[in-house]
Amino acid sequence: MAAPIDFYFDFSSPYGYLASERIEAVGARYGRAVTWRPFLLGAIFKIVGTAPLLDYPMKGDYSKRDMLRSARHLGIPFRMPSAFPTASLSAARIFYWLADTRPELAKPFASAIYRRYFVDDQPIEPAEHAIEIAVSLGLERNAIAAALQDPAVKARLKTEVDAGIARGVFGSPFVFVDGEPFWGADRFDQIERWLETGGW
Amino acid sequence: MAAPIDFYFDFSSPYGYLASERIEAVGARYGRAVTWRPFLLGAIFKIVGTAPLLDYPMKGDYSKRDMLRSARHLGIPFRMPSAFPTASLSAARIFYWLADTRPELAKPFASAIYRRYFVDDQPIEPAEHAIEIAVSLGLERNAIAAALQDPAVKARLKTEVDAGIARGVFGSPFVFVDGEPFWGADRFDQIERWLETGGW
Repeated sequence: MAAPIDFYFDFSSPYGYLASERIEAVGARYGRAVTWRPFLLGAIFKIVGTAPLLDYPMKGDYSKRDMLRSARHLGIPFRMPSAFPTASLSAARIFYWLADTRPELAKPFASAIYRRYFVDDQPIEPAEHAIEIAVSLGLERNAIAAALQDPAVKARLKTEVDAGIARGVFGSPFVFVDGEPFWGADRFDQIERWLETGGW
Repeated sequence: MAAPIDFYFDFSSPYGYLASERIEAVGARYGRAVTWRPFLLGAIFKIVGTAPLLDYPMKGDYSKRDMLRSARHLGIPFRMPSAFPTASLSAARIFYWLADTRPELAKPFASAIYRRYFVDDQPIEPAEHAIEIAVSLGLERNAIAAALQDPAVKARLKTEVDAGIARGVFGSPFVFVDGEPFWGADRFDQIERWLETGGW
């Protein structure tokens, strides 16, 4: 099997959510596994000198409209969360803890977090909300709470964020196919072509 | 005939160039005229708080790659100009002078400017270069030079830029279909769907 696709995203990112609803099907179509890598956009904004989309005059208003329209265009359920943006640290830490201990639950957890926030308009922070999602997947509450405080789990997320930055990740979603970078939920046509042809 | 499509762009914008090579065919397919409206991104960056793409660490490097790849994906000739970005004031002023006096030459002039810069890698500023393009279309050199200094022509461009800002234009290309805004050369699938369905 060819190398996995790397899928970087922030749990607070609407376009990351839209990509998360499509990336597995795209991978499957071309015989590729997909490695999900949540990260924290806040850490990256500081380096790149950008800010959350909705903080920009004009661009912020347009983006809200574009997110809703793009979701309808793709046929993906989406609501603009009442409290947006949100922190996403707890969900990201729980994700990597699951990836290392119960890997079969990591993606279902990520999708459940995304849908809770962008479909049900429910909060994913503070931690109790992310913990609740993990509990609903059958995990033990105390174990999750302990993982969230575990220095090794904290370090795991930090390592992933640093590795993403080192690879040039500056936005969400961000996808690598055999080293080729694609930024945005609107590059899936190019991603598919790259998977099909190996470049053009 | 339904209302024209409004097509806003900056002559220094690679994605604006890519859009300029497609927008007329899209309009024709749905029985729409296209009104071309060059503007000056610099005026807008100040309001929105953004900067030229290539000024951003990481995002700048990615963007150069994405411009080249997107052009290849669309089958549109494209070279990253040696001197990038560029001023685009002279070309924009000549465009509006033509639109008001020799309208049949305005779009050919715009396309010639874009191709000179993004295909032939030749400068479009200072003014002598933009003038040369207009001369090659059969216009009289002294008349163009006079138009560039004409306060009415200067005011015409300023009015267009202000009107664009008032409508929410913050990037290039920026397209309106019956009032619906679309930002980016990567929204043509949604533009076409909107033209076909009137919204969804």
